[in-house]
Amino acid sequence: MALGEFDLIERFFRQRAVKHAVASVALGIGDDCALLNLPPGTQLAISCDMLVAGRHFFPDVKPAHLGHKALAVNLSDLAACGAQPLAFTLALSLPAIDEAWLQGFSDGLMALADEHHCALIGGDTTAGPLNICITVFGSVPVPGRKQPSSEPQGNSQALLRSGARAGDDLYVSGTLGDARLALDVLQGRLPLSTTSNAAAPATNGVPSAVFAAARLRLECPTPRVALGLALRGVANSAIDVSDGLLGDLAHILKASGCGACIETDIAIDLLASCQHPAMTDSLFSLNTEQRQDYVLAGGDDYELLFTAPPACSAAVQAAAQSSNTRVTRIGRIEAEPGLRLIDAQGQALNGRFASFDHFG
Amino acid sequence: MALGEFDLIERFFRQRAVKHAVASVALGIGDDCALLNLPPGTQLAISCDMLVAGRHFFPDVKPAHLGHKALAVNLSDLAACGAQPLAFTLALSLPAIDEAWLQGFSDGLMALADEHHCALIGGDTTAGPLNICITVFGSVPVPGRKQPSSEPQGNSQALLRSGARAGDDLYVSGTLGDARLALDVLQGRLPLSTTSNAAAPATNGVPSAVFAAARLRLECPTPRVALGLALRGVANSAIDVSDGLLGDLAHILKASGCGACIETDIAIDLLASCQHPAMTDSLFSLNTEQRQDYVLAGGDDYELLFTAPPACSAAVQAAAQSSNTRVTRIGRIEAEPGLRLIDAQGQALNGRFASFDHFG
Repeated sequence: MALGEFDLIERFFRQRAVKHAVASVALGIGDDCALLNLPPGTQLAISCDMLVAGRHFFPDVKPAHLGHKALAVNLSDLAACGAQPLAFTLALSLPAIDEAWLQGFSDGLMALADEHHCALIGGDTTAGPLNICITVFGSVPVPGRKQPSSEPQGNSQALLRSGARAGDDLYVSGTLGDARLALDVLQGRLPLSTTSNAAAPATNGVPSAVFAAARLRLECPTPRVALGLALRGVANSAIDVSDGLLGDLAHILKASGCGACIETDIAIDLLASCQHPAMTDSLFSLNTEQRQDYVLAGGDDYELLFTAPPACSAAVQAAAQSSNTRVTRIGRIEAEPGLRLIDAQGQALNGRFASFDHFG
Repeated sequence: MALGEFDLIERFFRQRAVKHAVASVALGIGDDCALLNLPPGTQLAISCDMLVAGRHFFPDVKPAHLGHKALAVNLSDLAACGAQPLAFTLALSLPAIDEAWLQGFSDGLMALADEHHCALIGGDTTAGPLNICITVFGSVPVPGRKQPSSEPQGNSQALLRSGARAGDDLYVSGTLGDARLALDVLQGRLPLSTTSNAAAPATNGVPSAVFAAARLRLECPTPRVALGLALRGVANSAIDVSDGLLGDLAHILKASGCGACIETDIAIDLLASCQHPAMTDSLFSLNTEQRQDYVLAGGDDYELLFTAPPACSAAVQAAAQSSNTRVTRIGRIEAEPGLRLIDAQGQALNGRFASFDHFG
């Protein structure tokens, strides 16, 4: 490599890491280990995600978007636990030292880190196929904790997958399915409008403005950190939607030992692309089955899927408002294992998502 | 992938992780985040290393050795800080699900984790070029700490690179250079004896028994965790020797703002291969320059290089004994910047390592 590891960190990552005067960071980059002080009365939440070129992103993705996304998917895991971001490590395998790429990547990465006061405290760089591995650290209050608890979770306020109870309402933040729609356009499974005249309605594919907005959802997801924090003490369970709504819901149902019912007519309205003015003005549209696919099994949404008792519905709305995040009730948790999809009339849905016997 | 991520963790990594009933682990694998309680009066030490096939290991290395080494290099960083291992995350990119490979890899990995009571608490698995990224967590006492300190390191007992002072003795643990000797054999830069008759002296290359022992040092390094813990409050500074003795010493000198003098005749005796009975019985031998190369600039040793005031020499020996780890004084720290190499008579060494002006 033309640039040594230390030069690389110094030049692209170090000076900005210093900006993060996070009280918890006793020692950042530059020794064998970083040293982190945990705020009193808290425990550490840790998550780790590895992104591989060709699998998690296209090799030609804008480097700033990739830097953003690499941290965003990790912050999304903290959000799903209701953890306050503290710090992260970055391990980077690079096929070559491309300074323009590194500048863009670190710009995107560090801007999101700054936004969340999340300090880069260490990591590793090496030559090899492009691979980005971030481990992120956050804190979760454990009220009244003075001694290490022998109970697994003590009084931790962490939001877990296992806390959903029959009768809970099921909510999701933001919108769903647009990332997958963008992926389908990028991979040629969905046509892109070839009309370049913005005044003329596009008739032959996804309008470019819709695709651009959806692509931002795919490449620059917003981790719902503020909502996750606001849901501590309100939500019973939470997960971030990375594999698709139904797949991630299955994790909650399995961990909590219950089932769920989803009102699909409400859910499919969460595909923002269909509400986009350019789409509603267009003669091109998606059919119901496509919209269901995107919303229920899209993936890469990085929204929070969570449950709360009906008595907490006002508190959920308050959390949504305080975090400036849209929240929609899409169904309920039921004692009976399995997943049921119903339409606006409460009738069981017949179709490809009607039966999910392996759920619950 | 034939095996999903959850199946893979469940089958190869999960059941053994449960064995680690580490009090600090509030929640392990299976949620969006792991949750870790820090023992009271400690801070968290964090290190991260990424290993890439073809760069850090040969693709055909024994999987159990690779699993061992992937964790060992991280534990070595904890050792260099004097941190007690607590837990680790594992991110794994695999070109294919090879169950025999995974079994071997997890055997080696988890055996070392068990030995150090270090719990696997989370991670990620994905398809992609073989890449192993481990982030490890340990604890370091911060005596008297009740509130988060505004001072960077507070009263932390962590061993840092920056604490070396003029007059300190310079020590290294174990032996040096054998990993590099093995690498040179594997890459054809050093001949391997072709004599298969053990009774006949090998005359044409490194005896196979010497190579086998050296290869174990390369592929199965021993992290000096117990020594690092025993050196808390004794050593002024420490680093683990991963890039080579001189290169890693340079990090201490730069961070501490001082220079050093190394007694090379003592140092080159640390090449265990030359003391191996098969080597001393052999007509094959390494010349002084080769031995210096291996010891001073070999790399992949994962020994501890550390400094301590002369008044602590008995305490250093006690730490060596209590941790059952050989420790050798190889020189001293000096106020004058730069590195000086001297022979047994105290004369400055002339040769390729005589001058390291960029040190200090």
